[in-house]
Amino acid sequence: MTKPDPALLLLSRYPFQVELQTRFGDVDSLRHINNVAIAQLFEESRLRFLIEARGDALDPLSQSIRLVTAEIRFIYLREVAYPDSVVAGVSVEHIGNSSYRLGCAMFQFDQCVALCETAMVRSEVGGSVPLPIELKTAFERYRPV
Amino acid sequence: MTKPDPALLLLSRYPFQVELQTRFGDVDSLRHINNVAIAQLFEESRLRFLIEARGDALDPLSQSIRLVTAEIRFIYLREVAYPDSVVAGVSVEHIGNSSYRLGCAMFQFDQCVALCETAMVRSEVGGSVPLPIELKTAFERYRPV
Amino acid sequence: MTKPDPALLLLSRYPFQVELQTRFGDVDSLRHINNVAIAQLFEESRLRFLIEARGDALDPLSQSIRLVTAEIRFIYLREVAYPDSVVAGVSVEHIGNSSYRLGCAMFQFDQCVALCETAMVRSEVGGSVPLPIELKTAFERYRPV
Amino acid sequence: MTKPDPALLLLSRYPFQVELQTRFGDVDSLRHINNVAIAQLFEESRLRFLIEARGDALDPLSQSIRLVTAEIRFIYLREVAYPDSVVAGVSVEHIGNSSYRLGCAMFQFDQCVALCETAMVRSEVGGSVPLPIELKTAFERYRPV
Repeated sequence: MTKPDPALLLLSRYPFQVELQTRFGDVDSLRHINNVAIAQLFEESRLRFLIEARGDALDPLSQSIRLVTAEIRFIYLREVAYPDSVVAGVSVEHIGNSSYRLGCAMFQFDQCVALCETAMVRSEVGGSVPLPIELKTAFERYRPV
Repeated sequence: MTKPDPALLLLSRYPFQVELQTRFGDVDSLRHINNVAIAQLFEESRLRFLIEARGDALDPLSQSIRLVTAEIRFIYLREVAYPDSVVAGVSVEHIGNSSYRLGCAMFQFDQCVALCETAMVRSEVGGSVPLPIELKTAFERYRPV
Repeated sequence: MTKPDPALLLLSRYPFQVELQTRFGDVDSLRHINNVAIAQLFEESRLRFLIEARGDALDPLSQSIRLVTAEIRFIYLREVAYPDSVVAGVSVEHIGNSSYRLGCAMFQFDQCVALCETAMVRSEVGGSVPLPIELKTAFERYRPV
Repeated sequence: MTKPDPALLLLSRYPFQVELQTRFGDVDSLRHINNVAIAQLFEESRLRFLIEARGDALDPLSQSIRLVTAEIRFIYLREVAYPDSVVAGVSVEHIGNSSYRLGCAMFQFDQCVALCETAMVRSEVGGSVPLPIELKTAFERYRPV
């Protein structure tokens, strides 16, 4: 198993932070939050980040810029309990031409419970497309602290 | 389509109220919150209600009293948007011997978006079992206002 | 609790039938298929029915005709087990001007485990819209047997 | 983005194979199968593999051996369409003392759409516990071809 970099385990590292509710529907037969549900909570933190960074709270589902997931890696460190909320932190780790990489960490009871690294790419019919310059500029504000 | 009783559309009718986050994962290809996701949000409001009423926040997944859903009816009144939260209200409509009925309503932007009536029954191997008297007493505090 | 009409409990009543896989993700902390997951399986049976009835298997997500759920009622009769599949039956109970009503029943191990009645309405910006005549004609072929 | 090993993209490499239905509920607002839903489909393939390998189809939810996810990595190669099924392949890549690693690949229309590598660990209260020898022996039969 991979030993994560201790710096990744600190909430203060992540410039974007959001509290997310867990649901009974996230709990599986092992009576903890299921790992796929944790993946959905991480997805939610990326969306909330994107809404803030893009500033388009009014239409987050607008498909003017179509960003799809190319790669994700999760490290699960502790079991996550229901009905307690989690806090997710998001940072922009890398900004490429048509893609970017986000670092995310999830916390419950002030302990890091999971890490997630995601590579996103702007994808239109025909292939990848350069990110708009305004998005890249917006992302720069979310570099890890 | 059923015309709902206007009294059911008022949040103030419901003694238990909880704010619930919507998720990107709740959105379907019609770009609104999917009706099954609304069912999950209603389930969540019932669980949060039960945790408060039973006072067992420490172990809501304890199966000492096994309550299963016997019947649910949903009326969808308005489309529900992401990423805005909803508020769900819960009231105890009927307390039987081994079963009870909850009324729930969901609100977004101060408008009622959906109604849900649920019949729950205490079910153990072999069939239904009387509700504990403490649970019935607790439920009495949540009669509609 | 409502006593369902015995005629509804027979698979042979339903002209459209589909076998659906259950998933570990459908199982909740009570170690049975969760009632919201059953709602999703019923939704799936309606979609598979619609794909067959509309004959547009190539683009079931096309929004040319926007059908939304107005009302659903579930009766849960037996616990549903994982990893066994279920069979869902669908019939058209009523065809209105801009809406229609489907009857659905779910079976596992040859026993009816749940019933679902759904009112769907064609909804566009501005309100409900008449169903296309071809859709109504297609629906006629799925009256209960 | 990581360039995957071409050998991983061949279904014939994977000794366990299972066809899995997609659901309308897996589709997100981009009108493809959501990446979290793909994670759930991969989870399902691991469960189906485990049921076959352990031979305990009668009680896959038995918690006698508690296996939790420690690490997962996904590579998304192509968009996945609804309502078409996918085929998932599973192989045992590594068998450790208290953990093991599975390789999974997903196919639709005979093309590899996603890869998934998962590290699972046997976890009880107090920490990780050695895998039973019978499980290790069973896993040996699922080495990549």
